[in-house]
Amino acid sequence: MLTLHHAPNSRAGRIVWLLEELGLDYKLNRMEFSPKALKSDEHRARHPLGRVPVLEEDGTTLYESGAIVEYLVRRHSDGSLIPPHESSSFPEYLQWFHYCEGMVMPPINTIIVQTILLPPERRDNTVLGQAQRLLGKSLKPVNDALSNREYLIGSFSAADIMLGHSLYMSNRLDCVDETMDQIKRYIGNLEKRPAFQKGISA
Amino acid sequence: MLTLHHAPNSRAGRIVWLLEELGLDYKLNRMEFSPKALKSDEHRARHPLGRVPVLEEDGTTLYESGAIVEYLVRRHSDGSLIPPHESSSFPEYLQWFHYCEGMVMPPINTIIVQTILLPPERRDNTVLGQAQRLLGKSLKPVNDALSNREYLIGSFSAADIMLGHSLYMSNRLDCVDETMDQIKRYIGNLEKRPAFQKGISA
Repeated sequence: MLTLHHAPNSRAGRIVWLLEELGLDYKLNRMEFSPKALKSDEHRARHPLGRVPVLEEDGTTLYESGAIVEYLVRRHSDGSLIPPHESSSFPEYLQWFHYCEGMVMPPINTIIVQTILLPPERRDNTVLGQAQRLLGKSLKPVNDALSNREYLIGSFSAADIMLGHSLYMSNRLDCVDETMDQIKRYIGNLEKRPAFQKGISA
Repeated sequence: MLTLHHAPNSRAGRIVWLLEELGLDYKLNRMEFSPKALKSDEHRARHPLGRVPVLEEDGTTLYESGAIVEYLVRRHSDGSLIPPHESSSFPEYLQWFHYCEGMVMPPINTIIVQTILLPPERRDNTVLGQAQRLLGKSLKPVNDALSNREYLIGSFSAADIMLGHSLYMSNRLDCVDETMDQIKRYIGNLEKRPAFQKGISA
């Protein structure tokens, strides 16, 4: 049995989305997005730093959303969300999958810390501004890549689960401006998917 | 022909290391780690934000070190650096592979910005201290996982190329203290590999 440890408005939404796309049975442990819940002894036994998502299956505990996505696709699906290794889509699939945590999530994390998590007196506008500018620069190549495409590599793939979710978060943080018209259109494509709706509302 | 665009003391060292581990022929374009080189029009045609590593092969251009590592192993080796999907090592392989960019590199990037890249008058000790504390916390689970192991999942794998290289960088930045004895020992294991030596000195 698959158990997903989850908190709303976090990266864990990606995994709910994927579980729903794959039509898998799973148990959802929905925690509050608060230090009390995430830093509890119970949850730190699953993830020493108290993060989500964490996936459990038959005594195996696994964290890092990118790892969980690949695990689920390789172990629990026909693999169709990952292009064959010899295909021409494979390199761009890999690039956009890894671009999520490599380029987009670091400034998003800083923006969330500086606008939501820190108390107002500890926020730093210089740090916030740097992160917002970096995120804008990081989104530009994705906007260009999405021209005339429904999804990142054309057809829907696990790269959309990763990078698509972080583009959705960027937009929620008001960091996708009107010049990023391809990203805006693409987020509309994601929002039409019932599994995505379940992921972001879980 | 494989061409790697590289700058010293960057993530690109991982890729030199892997190319050497796999015994592949490649051309190395060694650039200075400077805005002049990395933000040149020539390099920004390869990576819009002027980052390294970038890999080129037969008209395909690929960035993100995690993507390049998986591309090279899947396309240019017998795949032995990635455990079979059904093996018991596969989940922990994935976790440590992704932990590198998810948990370890974000604070390393901040530490490099705050101690090397920014001019002294623009550095911020609060930001630096937060990053150093986060890096310390992020390394702790890795130190625990390395107990009685030569490599991250036991035998050498592509997870060592990713996370091992970032542990080496953490140590270079004086962020691996004496309580992290397993990481210190592990870095010693990496340093015995001739391919690793080529990677970090390229």
